[in-house]
Amino acid sequence: MDNFKFYSPTKFIFGKGTQKEVGKTLSNYGAVKVLIVYGGGSAEKSGLIQQVTESLNNEKIPYCTLKGIKPNPTDDRVYEGISLAIEEGVNFILAVGGGSVIDTAKAIAVGAVYSGDFWDFFVHKENPMAALPIGVVLTIPAAGSEGSASAVITKIEGLQKVSIGTDLIRPRFAIMNPELTMTLPDFQTACGITDMLCHIFERYFSNTPAQLVNAYSEAIMRDIMDQAVTLTVQPDNYDARADIMWAGALAHNGLCGVGKEEDWATHRIEHEVSAIYDVAHGAGLACIEPAWLKFVSKKNPDMVWRFAINVMSVSPAGKTADEIMDEGIELLKDFYHGLGLTTSLRELVGKEPDIDAMIKSLERNVGPLLGSYVPLTMDDCREIYKLAL
Amino acid sequence: MDNFKFYSPTKFIFGKGTQKEVGKTLSNYGAVKVLIVYGGGSAEKSGLIQQVTESLNNEKIPYCTLKGIKPNPTDDRVYEGISLAIEEGVNFILAVGGGSVIDTAKAIAVGAVYSGDFWDFFVHKENPMAALPIGVVLTIPAAGSEGSASAVITKIEGLQKVSIGTDLIRPRFAIMNPELTMTLPDFQTACGITDMLCHIFERYFSNTPAQLVNAYSEAIMRDIMDQAVTLTVQPDNYDARADIMWAGALAHNGLCGVGKEEDWATHRIEHEVSAIYDVAHGAGLACIEPAWLKFVSKKNPDMVWRFAINVMSVSPAGKTADEIMDEGIELLKDFYHGLGLTTSLRELVGKEPDIDAMIKSLERNVGPLLGSYVPLTMDDCREIYKLAL
Repeated sequence: MDNFKFYSPTKFIFGKGTQKEVGKTLSNYGAVKVLIVYGGGSAEKSGLIQQVTESLNNEKIPYCTLKGIKPNPTDDRVYEGISLAIEEGVNFILAVGGGSVIDTAKAIAVGAVYSGDFWDFFVHKENPMAALPIGVVLTIPAAGSEGSASAVITKIEGLQKVSIGTDLIRPRFAIMNPELTMTLPDFQTACGITDMLCHIFERYFSNTPAQLVNAYSEAIMRDIMDQAVTLTVQPDNYDARADIMWAGALAHNGLCGVGKEEDWATHRIEHEVSAIYDVAHGAGLACIEPAWLKFVSKKNPDMVWRFAINVMSVSPAGKTADEIMDEGIELLKDFYHGLGLTTSLRELVGKEPDIDAMIKSLERNVGPLLGSYVPLTMDDCREIYKLAL
Repeated sequence: MDNFKFYSPTKFIFGKGTQKEVGKTLSNYGAVKVLIVYGGGSAEKSGLIQQVTESLNNEKIPYCTLKGIKPNPTDDRVYEGISLAIEEGVNFILAVGGGSVIDTAKAIAVGAVYSGDFWDFFVHKENPMAALPIGVVLTIPAAGSEGSASAVITKIEGLQKVSIGTDLIRPRFAIMNPELTMTLPDFQTACGITDMLCHIFERYFSNTPAQLVNAYSEAIMRDIMDQAVTLTVQPDNYDARADIMWAGALAHNGLCGVGKEEDWATHRIEHEVSAIYDVAHGAGLACIEPAWLKFVSKKNPDMVWRFAINVMSVSPAGKTADEIMDEGIELLKDFYHGLGLTTSLRELVGKEPDIDAMIKSLERNVGPLLGSYVPLTMDDCREIYKLAL
């Protein structure tokens, strides 16, 4: 186990009806004026935005709103939010939504207290030194952004999709009511599950020995898959929804990566797909992850083999290591198919993907090498895109 | 899964050499004058106290010390620490040691900013409203106090051993270097392992359905037992020491209890043993836990059965539920014996224990009923003490 720091200060307020506590919670955290960031349609139609604003009204906390944040959130809305936050003099940002909304709120939080261009942080020209505090009412378990130190934003000009990581943007609190996720379209539930699983994969596939962390990571992955299957037949199963929501937070608050070198190649390879073709990040991951596994299984089999047996429950008796790994990867693809997702890039984007364009953008965003479980060259990444076709 | 709040704001700074970061860390947290609380002998002899004070000197942070804290820490040392903290005007308390030292530091932290008697908080006459900030350099993985909201103190007069729980006393940071634990006597390592396992048991044995939490709790319990066995033959195995140390924090920071009704009967039943006979808490638990399991297995078998199969790896084929549970309990006793611990109260205290005295004190401290997995009357507790003889 390598040396590490683990810091997850977010207060998770979890369970039925908890969205009604948002006003009181904001008040406890000293919110005087709040910018509410949200997606739009479904949060309004379901009455959630009304419940949230009522809860703020009850505490006499004034607010302004930035709505209509879309998946794969873009820099234009961040600039808009920064201007609004400054004009209105807000001292707290409340994200009501999933990862895209929360990441937009995080970018606004660092940008609103910085005299320069917030994009400086995303291209690592400057390090953020301060941020407005952030709270979350989570509606989509997926990105883990409700407890994470990271945010991903796409610059419209050039479709550059990049991330920052700083403890300054860890939400102060995250209100998580699994009931709110019961009306999610199946596709969104599936993409969220794929995303949270991949957050664990990025930490699990590592060359650092880590018996304890691997053991509880495997337990969490198995439960996510088990509950995901339950939700395909019982989408209103509260306990399954609750497990998926809590697992999504644990998958990305750092717990599953302590003391390990993390990988993150799959995420970076996928980011080019969703940035260029504007597909859901989780849907992209369902194509890239099995291809990445197939590629690395030939170079560094140890953890792929362990994954096949301990997570995908492949029975090893009488099989070669390659057979065990291939069966594990096929079972993972079957799992994605069972959630209604494709594992083919061609099918996902509806045409022949432009691998040259993705490689070019990938190299610009991350440089010539990425990943650590198997360090990948751009030629390796090209191979992975091909395996995912 | 029940509604819950999970809040674990402690920054864990984990790994080799990390004790040398204590001065800088205190400085980052605004420490101006520090009260260092520690046990004595071993921390001085090993050179740890010198490393810690040098690290403070390097940052020009003045300090005073309260040393000689003993296991099952008592109120007299807390009063002494409170006077010292006030006289010296300290604004930060640093605990260098294990659970007894940390709990003493926590009691001083709430007492030093309260005009009344700190014991008011422990008998729940008053709720603490403030506390001095606390940091930890952990030397014994056991109590989990480095990340927990609780503290246990014994009042010398009447040997009343009771606890408080408040987020105010969660340490701001915990420096955890597994190397520091390599020189622990085997007995102390064993007691620590017993204590952290029991922190998970108290949350695991619950009537609340909790598939995810149970799954990762089981993974953590299995790893603790596995690494404990490794340490009996390789006490210098760094990765095993690291897993045990990290597991000790996770066992008691709340992670394993989210959304579940917790039990805590075993701890309360044991507290009477260690308070009256001044034995190590972990050693007492090794006697009480199997007796408690045996007792509750007759009343509410579900989780005991699951524990036997999923944690103790009992093969269920061809066995009755009672046989499976009994085998699981016997395997747990074997595990304790393998660590050099007795599971007999008589052997532990070296005479016939005074069950009447323990029951009398237990009832005074917790009332007529305790626990939730199986709510226990005082007659039930008497039965458990007898089963533990």
